[in-house]
Amino acid sequence: MKQYLKTAPWQIIEEKFHPSRMRASESIFSLGNGRFGQRGNFEEHYSSDSLQGSYLAGVTFLDKTKVGWWKNSYPRFFSRVPNAPDWSGMRIRLIDEELDLAVWDVQDYLRQLDMKSGISYRSFVATSPKGNTLSIKITHLNHMMEPNLCMIRFEVKSINYSGKLSVVPYLDANVKHESANYDEQMWTTLRSETKEDVAYLWTQVKREDTQVCMAMGYQAQYNGEPLDKYSILIEKEQAVGYNVGCQVKPNDTLEVDKFVTIVSSLYESRNDIVDSTVSDLRRYMKVGWNELIKDHQAYWKKLWNDSDVVIQGDEQAQQGIRFNIFQLHQSYQGRDHRLNIAAKGFTGEFYGGNTFWNTELCCLPYFLLSSRQDIARNLLLYRETYLQKAIANARKLGIGGGAALYPMMTITGEESHNEWEITFEEIHRNSIMAYAIVQYICWSGDIDYLTPHGLRVLIAICRFWALRVTWSQRCQCYMLLGVTGPNEYENNVDNNWYTNFSCRQTLLDTLKMLKLAHQHNEAGTHAVLEEVQLADGELQKWQEIADKMYLHQDEKTSLFIQQDGYLNKVMQNVDEIPSEERPINQHWSWDRILRSCFIKQSDVLLGLYLYRDHFDQETIRKNYEFYAPKTVHESSLSPYVHCILAARLGKLDEAYNLFLQATRMDLDDYNHEVNAGLHVTSMAGSWMALAHGFAGMMLKKQVLTFEPVMPSQWTCYELKVNYLDCAVKVTVHPDAVDVLLLDGDELSVRIYDKTVLCKKKVLQTIAY
Amino acid sequence: MKQYLKTAPWQIIEEKFHPSRMRASESIFSLGNGRFGQRGNFEEHYSSDSLQGSYLAGVTFLDKTKVGWWKNSYPRFFSRVPNAPDWSGMRIRLIDEELDLAVWDVQDYLRQLDMKSGISYRSFVATSPKGNTLSIKITHLNHMMEPNLCMIRFEVKSINYSGKLSVVPYLDANVKHESANYDEQMWTTLRSETKEDVAYLWTQVKREDTQVCMAMGYQAQYNGEPLDKYSILIEKEQAVGYNVGCQVKPNDTLEVDKFVTIVSSLYESRNDIVDSTVSDLRRYMKVGWNELIKDHQAYWKKLWNDSDVVIQGDEQAQQGIRFNIFQLHQSYQGRDHRLNIAAKGFTGEFYGGNTFWNTELCCLPYFLLSSRQDIARNLLLYRETYLQKAIANARKLGIGGGAALYPMMTITGEESHNEWEITFEEIHRNSIMAYAIVQYICWSGDIDYLTPHGLRVLIAICRFWALRVTWSQRCQCYMLLGVTGPNEYENNVDNNWYTNFSCRQTLLDTLKMLKLAHQHNEAGTHAVLEEVQLADGELQKWQEIADKMYLHQDEKTSLFIQQDGYLNKVMQNVDEIPSEERPINQHWSWDRILRSCFIKQSDVLLGLYLYRDHFDQETIRKNYEFYAPKTVHESSLSPYVHCILAARLGKLDEAYNLFLQATRMDLDDYNHEVNAGLHVTSMAGSWMALAHGFAGMMLKKQVLTFEPVMPSQWTCYELKVNYLDCAVKVTVHPDAVDVLLLDGDELSVRIYDKTVLCKKKVLQTIAY
Repeated sequence: MKQYLKTAPWQIIEEKFHPSRMRASESIFSLGNGRFGQRGNFEEHYSSDSLQGSYLAGVTFLDKTKVGWWKNSYPRFFSRVPNAPDWSGMRIRLIDEELDLAVWDVQDYLRQLDMKSGISYRSFVATSPKGNTLSIKITHLNHMMEPNLCMIRFEVKSINYSGKLSVVPYLDANVKHESANYDEQMWTTLRSETKEDVAYLWTQVKREDTQVCMAMGYQAQYNGEPLDKYSILIEKEQAVGYNVGCQVKPNDTLEVDKFVTIVSSLYESRNDIVDSTVSDLRRYMKVGWNELIKDHQAYWKKLWNDSDVVIQGDEQAQQGIRFNIFQLHQSYQGRDHRLNIAAKGFTGEFYGGNTFWNTELCCLPYFLLSSRQDIARNLLLYRETYLQKAIANARKLGIGGGAALYPMMTITGEESHNEWEITFEEIHRNSIMAYAIVQYICWSGDIDYLTPHGLRVLIAICRFWALRVTWSQRCQCYMLLGVTGPNEYENNVDNNWYTNFSCRQTLLDTLKMLKLAHQHNEAGTHAVLEEVQLADGELQKWQEIADKMYLHQDEKTSLFIQQDGYLNKVMQNVDEIPSEERPINQHWSWDRILRSCFIKQSDVLLGLYLYRDHFDQETIRKNYEFYAPKTVHESSLSPYVHCILAARLGKLDEAYNLFLQATRMDLDDYNHEVNAGLHVTSMAGSWMALAHGFAGMMLKKQVLTFEPVMPSQWTCYELKVNYLDCAVKVTVHPDAVDVLLLDGDELSVRIYDKTVLCKKKVLQTIAY
Repeated sequence: MKQYLKTAPWQIIEEKFHPSRMRASESIFSLGNGRFGQRGNFEEHYSSDSLQGSYLAGVTFLDKTKVGWWKNSYPRFFSRVPNAPDWSGMRIRLIDEELDLAVWDVQDYLRQLDMKSGISYRSFVATSPKGNTLSIKITHLNHMMEPNLCMIRFEVKSINYSGKLSVVPYLDANVKHESANYDEQMWTTLRSETKEDVAYLWTQVKREDTQVCMAMGYQAQYNGEPLDKYSILIEKEQAVGYNVGCQVKPNDTLEVDKFVTIVSSLYESRNDIVDSTVSDLRRYMKVGWNELIKDHQAYWKKLWNDSDVVIQGDEQAQQGIRFNIFQLHQSYQGRDHRLNIAAKGFTGEFYGGNTFWNTELCCLPYFLLSSRQDIARNLLLYRETYLQKAIANARKLGIGGGAALYPMMTITGEESHNEWEITFEEIHRNSIMAYAIVQYICWSGDIDYLTPHGLRVLIAICRFWALRVTWSQRCQCYMLLGVTGPNEYENNVDNNWYTNFSCRQTLLDTLKMLKLAHQHNEAGTHAVLEEVQLADGELQKWQEIADKMYLHQDEKTSLFIQQDGYLNKVMQNVDEIPSEERPINQHWSWDRILRSCFIKQSDVLLGLYLYRDHFDQETIRKNYEFYAPKTVHESSLSPYVHCILAARLGKLDEAYNLFLQATRMDLDDYNHEVNAGLHVTSMAGSWMALAHGFAGMMLKKQVLTFEPVMPSQWTCYELKVNYLDCAVKVTVHPDAVDVLLLDGDELSVRIYDKTVLCKKKVLQTIAY
């Protein structure tokens, strides 16, 4: 754990310049608007270590697969979101010096990410090697309502400098992608042009035909007065921009506002892309900075109004959970079902901008339960959109019959991953796709979604399971051999309990959903079954597999066994590992990790959380007490799950610590890797930890139920929840709960064993 | 299986030009002399598909590791023998055309590898697009007695051409290494020079400081008369040579003999390398072609005299086993303990010229039993030489205490391999290192080898096992978790029976060897134990592990179980796989392969062969009949093991087919991969199949014993065997065995239950 940022309820604050934490800060201060985003790179020149990163949603580069030893059925390409042409750059030049915080003396450094308004600020006083001192303030935002617009303001004041001062806003396609497999340049510049008012850069991704156009303009003020448009045009093949200069003396100020529009061919035809990008820019510049920023702030205001979480008495937790919500909404607006959420959002190259099962496990329920349900629906549609590719993916592994295996990592539906024990074996990911559909139906009540969307996907997944199981003649049951469970510190194991259980539940839930669909829309259901050519006996086969699924339980202890060989390992607890060897994935050989009993992330316990209705408290407790001490939480997907179980088991201190870890995973860099980007998708877990863990939120016979507990560190917490057509605000006090129906006419809400009927906007307080 | 070569007892013959089989022929017609070797590339220009390959023993390039997902403790570099500067090239030019069999019409093509004399011949008549016809004969040898010398003769006769004819012998450092990880150029040219009589090329391997100098000269005859030394000097930065030309008319002949000396800095100081290479060349050229070739032929004559195997009545088997013996001796002469045998010898890039456990499993016993025992000793010394690197390798995995893990692939002792399930987990390789030492002691009687050489290695290996086992609390026994057995179609399994059994035997054999060493050389043994700081209790611990090693045996069937989960798989036989899906490693997804019951190569059965003294016939039969039908033999290490067991079980037809497969693996391309090179190391297996399988050779209470059987396809077979200080020729007839002591004074030999005392050079015939 490495803390260096200040705690505040609505802001992320870096009060001192930390060059050694540059990459970490770049990750944490990332900005996005769902359509594009970038790391918190210094806009000005910075000659020391940094990871420059700007990314565009859905824009992919096919990087040739790089492996040591090829395995049959590996994908030929690794799809990645390439580091985009740099649209943020603004240099500051004196007559013969250039601002560079790696070289200049820095004072009064302050970086603030204001989450309430979605704006990043940075200010400092810097003195050049020659003794020239400037005071600078930078404002940066990616507009949430205008999805093509980025705005950056530089306010530069001379403290003691007299002479030529230039601010140079530019666009630059000559960028590196640090983790490219073969050091290839990923961008071709099709055309660049610098006009008097607008400069643009028209580019295309190599090996793909996706095009991107960026246009920029600026507005400048000298001592508060508009600066005469006198600037030098920058017209390079791969870079365009302006050198905006004036003569200054001490106390003079130069302010330059940079406006950038960014459009990809996902949203504009290739024929019109340049004109459209340029004309958008001109329109925005006409509207002007002040009006534009108001819309942006209004967007965030509404968003917080709908989705804020309040935790009183604990600024760390408060800041953490707001940071998580903020980053989630920056990464995904949920308006385009071709897009999904990259594991690291727009905050780094790691994982190549690909989507994992994290989306369905974490993000989708967050959006479903606490934000707009249509976001969740679009995330489901994303998987349906790429169903045929998932079917092709299974076929590639030798599993036909219309079976689908969703990829481990993907952007546009193709598998990107190339590590056999994960790509081919971490197949439990298929079940969470089905789980998400079922959750969506239950919480939104949108049964219509099943025909044809949901059913198609559910059936294809069940077909996969039906062909992937092995009938063990010896044991007379169905097994799943050669899998990797959520605990990626065990690979290629037999009968991972979570995988087996979730497979079984997927089959059973699908059978239920088929019944529901029949009842709700018989004709539509028949049409789907005909379309997918459901054969006689398929449903019976699924029932049989579910009935005879092997679920390894230890005879003596009745524990669920993580995988067949788990109990042969040497049993140890995490606290026996010397702290200097943590995280073990940065200190131990892979061999040692694999052979140890240590669990990367919740595995059996994930099943006990997801399918918690199926287990009594005693079973959960026993397994929790066995597995939790062996879990190193070296995945961001893990602490929140343990937090939920711990809270439900009344282990409040433990739950509280896990909550902080889940919520401040990146702010406090628990796993020593925030430099590579934020764990955006798992950030949603902290909301789940609050809702399902502390607030004990669940559906009991379709009644929205809370069974809250209160960690001693808090005085009150509040969250908003969607259920069916209703939205409810729930405020938990130490001995009572306030419930307020925000949307919908009425809703029964249960607090422990008391059920109240809530009417819209009528506050009810229920003691517990 | 793909046959296209003619069968002959002493030769490999390609009677027709097969451009589509070019890479295969290049592999099969490879030449080597232990110090260097090359694929059977056309010496002249060839513009169509080909894999050019020339390799120098012990010369390595550090190729940066290429993996998709880094695992802790992967090696930073992959050592590979780089494709060396081309020393074989000789172009043939007409006035405005160049010989190129990809373009010219070819008639009377004949390629012959004469194994008796170690010379490759190629002859053909070729007609150019312009109608010019030449008749050409090429002779090529790598000198076995002069380890620096390569000789190539071109005899060119004009059939209908009049005009300038040039033969261009050259050296060229501008070569590609097809499978380089990052397309790097691997050679730097330090200096090149073309003098009147000698041209040389002085080069260095990039990233390493190994230097190589090659020098060449030529001797030419025009119509049988020495050609006046008039040639054009070729003096390029990376290439040197001569354009040897004359005016010809139909029936004229031009003969050019190229002499090349090749010296690496392993054998000459960097200061002297150029002078030495050049002066060697001058000396050889003075001796001349005819004398030099006599020495080379004499070498092979002696070699065949010592090590030939005769199989009567079966030319295919006869040719196959001679090809194997020939290739083994071409690949390794056993005079330098810094060298080992690359899995593909000098015949291809595949496996990067690295050595595997194949050497100890296959090659070492072949040399020990049928060739010079000092070769076997040098192979053992090779591993001892790199013991400290093996200790460092174990330490890297977290296993200290002086434990050694020998690398999976290596040239100079460092691990090259980077595939976790093999690199870190296929650790049974450690046991065969120990097994080889024990075999060497038993068969050679060279007990002196134990102190200090053998013991050091044995102890370090036992220390590895003692730290790598896991005590299963639940089962109260020692287990080996997370291993890959010889069957690489199952990865990361628990309790691979072969690994567990060979671990146990290594511990027990080491304890025995320690006793023997004590008896034989007490002071020396104590010195070793002191040197390695053997702690109190280590030996007891090894005994305890051996006593309590888990050896999974099925209760119902009493079969040895390949790994803990094996019996849960769907049991099928190989004959259920459609032939168009064979080999499965070229047709099935890796996932499907892993989950299937199919076995890449002998695994349990390998243990039953290596440790056959420990098992009764019934146990071997039962396991053979269970596992053999599930084995796809997609490793060249497999058929010979099955052949031995089948022969001992009296399954003679099966044994015969396996023998052909083992012996003609490459000639008949059973596994569709001969294009990439020959399976040089496993070639030794065919000798073992004959000796241990058909001839039933073994030590029974230290008496050399044969219990021969005769496949119906054969009338007689003969092999020579070393035991202690003796060499015996054994000729097996259908009902009697001839035994002749070639070396040594006397030796007891047993045929089934009859023991005879053999005296030197006295033939004895024993009926059976």
